[in-house]
Amino acid sequence: SEATITVLPGDGVGPEVSAQAVKALRAVEKRYGHTFTLHEGLVGLDAIAAEGSAISDATFETCAQSDAILFGAVGALPAAEHRADGPRPEQALFRLRKEFGFFANLRPVRPAEALYEASSLKPECLKGADMVFVRELSAGLYYGHMETVPGKPSEIRQRGGRTEAVDTLLYTEEEIERVVRVAFDIAAGRRARVTSVDKANVLSSSVLWRQVVDRVAADHPGVTHEHMLVDACAMRLIRTPAEFDVIVTENLFGDILTDEASMLTGSIGMLPSASLGVRRTAGGRFGLYEPVHGSAPDIAGQDAANPVGAVLSAALLLRHSLGLEREAAAVEEAVEDVMRDGYRVPDLHDEGCTVVGTEEFGRLIVHRLEAR
Amino acid sequence: SEATITVLPGDGVGPEVSAQAVKALRAVEKRYGHTFTLHEGLVGLDAIAAEGSAISDATFETCAQSDAILFGAVGALPAAEHRADGPRPEQALFRLRKEFGFFANLRPVRPAEALYEASSLKPECLKGADMVFVRELSAGLYYGHMETVPGKPSEIRQRGGRTEAVDTLLYTEEEIERVVRVAFDIAAGRRARVTSVDKANVLSSSVLWRQVVDRVAADHPGVTHEHMLVDACAMRLIRTPAEFDVIVTENLFGDILTDEASMLTGSIGMLPSASLGVRRTAGGRFGLYEPVHGSAPDIAGQDAANPVGAVLSAALLLRHSLGLEREAAAVEEAVEDVMRDGYRVPDLHDEGCTVVGTEEFGRLIVHRLEAR
Ligand SMILES: CC(C)[C@H](C(=O)O)[C@@H](O)C(=O)O
Ligand SMILES: CC(C)[C@H](C(=O)O)[C@@H](O)C(=O)O
Repeated sequence: SEATITVLPGDGVGPEVSAQAVKALRAVEKRYGHTFTLHEGLVGLDAIAAEGSAISDATFETCAQSDAILFGAVGALPAAEHRADGPRPEQALFRLRKEFGFFANLRPVRPAEALYEASSLKPECLKGADMVFVRELSAGLYYGHMETVPGKPSEIRQRGGRTEAVDTLLYTEEEIERVVRVAFDIAAGRRARVTSVDKANVLSSSVLWRQVVDRVAADHPGVTHEHMLVDACAMRLIRTPAEFDVIVTENLFGDILTDEASMLTGSIGMLPSASLGVRRTAGGRFGLYEPVHGSAPDIAGQDAANPVGAVLSAALLLRHSLGLEREAAAVEEAVEDVMRDGYRVPDLHDEGCTVVGTEEFGRLIVHRLEAR
Repeated sequence: SEATITVLPGDGVGPEVSAQAVKALRAVEKRYGHTFTLHEGLVGLDAIAAEGSAISDATFETCAQSDAILFGAVGALPAAEHRADGPRPEQALFRLRKEFGFFANLRPVRPAEALYEASSLKPECLKGADMVFVRELSAGLYYGHMETVPGKPSEIRQRGGRTEAVDTLLYTEEEIERVVRVAFDIAAGRRARVTSVDKANVLSSSVLWRQVVDRVAADHPGVTHEHMLVDACAMRLIRTPAEFDVIVTENLFGDILTDEASMLTGSIGMLPSASLGVRRTAGGRFGLYEPVHGSAPDIAGQDAANPVGAVLSAALLLRHSLGLEREAAAVEEAVEDVMRDGYRVPDLHDEGCTVVGTEEFGRLIVHRLEAR
């Protein structure tokens, strides 16, 4: 089949890891006879320097014409260059998420047995862990910095002679319902268990969240569900991770819990993500695919970044936006093969393993893909 | 010295663990020649049943007349008994925290070596971990349920024909500053490192938080500080816990991160907390002391709850409200001795250890205290 993909490598290690994901896509193209047209665009610090904003309208338009976006990472502005109303690299992500309506952020967490050594957790705790987070990505406490929604302030202000700062956690019933539906649909194709995470003993938005979850659950008699408080979940992810199947939660809780859960896999560099929107493509839904890790400026340019999160994001792209399940699985298996053969990038320094660079790890994945 | 303490055992395992903390206080009283006057009051489900609210004005007044409050735990209302405007057990906590101005919640996390086995984390990760959380406890996203502060809605409402829910994250500069000062003061008596946790790339309240931290830091040249994003912190607590000394953060982030960090100690049952307010007492500050764990109704009445969190909370009470440092340390050492001797409550089922009940574990602590 044919598909158009916009690649936005971004800052720091973004370009290095994106290059490996692109190599994997090219290998899939050749091996399975597809035609992928790739466009590259600027985001983050380079875009600010060249075009004055974290993502230009032209780049945005290129994305809009694509079936999927492959995203690297965006950095942070050095504190010295921070101006109150100046552009910031993160705005590229916020704008893409918001304007394309990427409301469902999928983050699968499945620690590979070959990597148990690298995790802070004991192997007996990791055993059987295999979960997918469905994080709401378009609402909640986010976006106040970017735009002022009526009734949803995010600002530092003076009131009664005092300085105060306010952010607003706002959810409409529709915003909750659409992401919860995605979670139940995914659970139906897995172990049929949904854990909905909230703070209903404190937040009104969580009380509404629970009501909507119970209503959606009634449409899915084959899927069991439970409610869990976010503080309890932060504990259970470490104590009994194997108990989870699909976890659905609001934006900021999802941000915190997925970073925490990444530690099960030994390194945040392992984790891919898919952000799915409402627009349909020939093979699925328009989406943005990015590793969960950030731009890691401290190791940029050293051929030391872990490309697995980026390459597995390309696999999710094949699956969710292009409908190429067999190809997605092939990429995932190629990554597992390379790990099982004992190759590691420097963030996972196991004894008895062969440490290789980003570039070489990408080449090994391609090699496995070609050999299938 | 003389002191008055109000004991609020509450629901579930609250009474069982509080009883052990009281036993420890009585042993300290006798051994070191103090006079502690203890008053007991109702909170939570029993208070709702007997008095119509989660804490009565009379109980509140008793607390106000004391030097400190020893708190057990409050339960949750069965879903069937939930009425939109009806009383809920958690309100006892919210009201105490808010009206007594308990703005600084101290939660020390120091995994005992004897318990490395019980933790999900590998011993090499736990080694050297010894941190104190200072959680802001009087503002932020909390309290919307209880009262409506102007400009701080927490409600489910109709707008433009749609149902939406809103919560407001509000901080004044003063609210941030007073808790950050507590953190820097504590750090000055420890390893002199403060980690301030926020989400400044998304929240205006976090941008203000950072500004205040930098300002307070300027008054403490002997203490180094860093800013860390909450998602990164959720990761680092597991990956490199030994790097932390004092962690200061806003209310809900503190709620999530401390529950996560409790897993370092093997069980949330191990963790004590102190909530300090503005009123001074003869020996320090008026405060509320409670284990971090909840009412655990599933194991209530089975003599199976871990009393360590409650007993260590009594130690914090001796230290922070009564100014009895030697006595506080004696209680902490007694608890360590009992653990080192191989006694465990059922939540920490190690091989080769002697499992005892709540009551017996409390007796063993008293025994060690008397033998000093
Ligand atoms: C970069 C940051 C704004 C972003 C977020 O908070 O969503 C990141 O942490 C993520 O998880 O994608
Ligand atoms: C019971 C609940 C409202 C409370 C909180 O969220 O503060 C608890 O989790 C805590 O940490 O003390």
